[in-house]
Amino acid sequence: MERLIEKAKLVASEVIVLAGLATKEKFDQIAMVEEKDEFGDVVTEADHLAEKIILDTLIKQFPDHSITSEESGSNKVNSDWLWQVDPLDGTNNFAIGLPVYASSITLLYKNQPVLGVVYEPMVDRLFVAAHQKGATYNDQEMTVKKRDNPNRFTIGWIQGHAVRNEEKAVKLRQHIDLNCKRMLRTWAPTLTWAMLAKGDIDAVIIYNSEGEDLYSGLLMVKEAGGCVIDFEGNDFSGVTTTPYFIACHPDHKEYFMKLVQDGLGE
Amino acid sequence: MERLIEKAKLVASEVIVLAGLATKEKFDQIAMVEEKDEFGDVVTEADHLAEKIILDTLIKQFPDHSITSEESGSNKVNSDWLWQVDPLDGTNNFAIGLPVYASSITLLYKNQPVLGVVYEPMVDRLFVAAHQKGATYNDQEMTVKKRDNPNRFTIGWIQGHAVRNEEKAVKLRQHIDLNCKRMLRTWAPTLTWAMLAKGDIDAVIIYNSEGEDLYSGLLMVKEAGGCVIDFEGNDFSGVTTTPYFIACHPDHKEYFMKLVQDGLGE
Repeated sequence: MERLIEKAKLVASEVIVLAGLATKEKFDQIAMVEEKDEFGDVVTEADHLAEKIILDTLIKQFPDHSITSEESGSNKVNSDWLWQVDPLDGTNNFAIGLPVYASSITLLYKNQPVLGVVYEPMVDRLFVAAHQKGATYNDQEMTVKKRDNPNRFTIGWIQGHAVRNEEKAVKLRQHIDLNCKRMLRTWAPTLTWAMLAKGDIDAVIIYNSEGEDLYSGLLMVKEAGGCVIDFEGNDFSGVTTTPYFIACHPDHKEYFMKLVQDGLGE
Repeated sequence: MERLIEKAKLVASEVIVLAGLATKEKFDQIAMVEEKDEFGDVVTEADHLAEKIILDTLIKQFPDHSITSEESGSNKVNSDWLWQVDPLDGTNNFAIGLPVYASSITLLYKNQPVLGVVYEPMVDRLFVAAHQKGATYNDQEMTVKKRDNPNRFTIGWIQGHAVRNEEKAVKLRQHIDLNCKRMLRTWAPTLTWAMLAKGDIDAVIIYNSEGEDLYSGLLMVKEAGGCVIDFEGNDFSGVTTTPYFIACHPDHKEYFMKLVQDGLGE
């Protein structure tokens, strides 16, 4: 199993850079944008191009693994090994020319994330985490940082497409916004996770955001020494269909649980 | 006067790229960050470096012009010509490794912006606007776009450092957030303006954000066919110490005025 994860890491790291460089060429030169739905994302040529590059390689290298991708769905193979591909996380940013987007590849074994690879083409940053092997960006070790003053915290907020202006979500979001230095909405969840793992921000709060953009980041934060808990403070592992989480430095658990509970009015 | 503006454009365009490339080398390698104040910005080495590059050139090329810069203050020359320099707009983004920042140079003549130059080093985009000469990015003409469906609008929100959680500002901000596709806070005002001029977003709402990061963008939006009005709908020109504005496509004036007035509870 370790050898497979090691191979997976090499293959994923190589192909994600190729896919990312292909999207970079299309940045700011969008010819066609399909609208997904009224409040949803946009899909670009770059998205499809990056997906094809990644899927072609994964299918060839791991033909008996299950593979799902944001755009194409599943390859219908039944396996304990599941690849999740988000070829272009932050497509909306990409569409409006904001250089904040990434590709993400996750490998799960029996519903546990064992490998997370995220690539940020515009700044050539490769983030890699493997189960019990730590997390790196461009081969430098990453660690979740512990800052002292909560008034100086930068907190990443991630919500799912379906959430829109759901009353509880709005209330919580506004409470967080008013109680930190800066609430960061990158609209590219995998990068928000990477920023926490790298020590650039202090927490991530996820409100019902599920999909291919979730587990690479969860693993990255954990491997960088952070914790991932639900709103009641229980440690989270595995996968879920109801992702409501706080991710932060373990010493800040209590602080963020209180912040979230106050925000939800509990 | 036209010849002077033409010379200013060439000098500013050249030096801003040099300054930007110097900041790019420092990106993600910050050695020292001074804290300005509790809720304020951070100042980085790159900020000072870019400022020096720009000021050295402006002082040499335009020795009898007045020059102010975000970090160094004024050169104490009295002139109808005033240069405003923001060497690193978005220093907070820079500090946390988010590739969304710019340098900005504005030239005013008798308190009217006549030249605005903004450079985004991470994606090598140069935005230039000159009074009655239009606006360009990388030599392509820019035009404020008119989209049809307000539910799909992306609205840039800019507020000054002093605003913090002022009640009226929070109310307005939250109202806007709930009534558009996406409220964009880049924390790099000059880029928000450039995105509107370039047609990537639909409006900018500024709540008391003054300083060296304001007038290059105002000029850019106007020269790209947009309008800049106060919250009562009056066209704005010149400079002000109370910058509360809406900038948008002229056909959307009424829509955004209503949105803002509803948000302020008027």
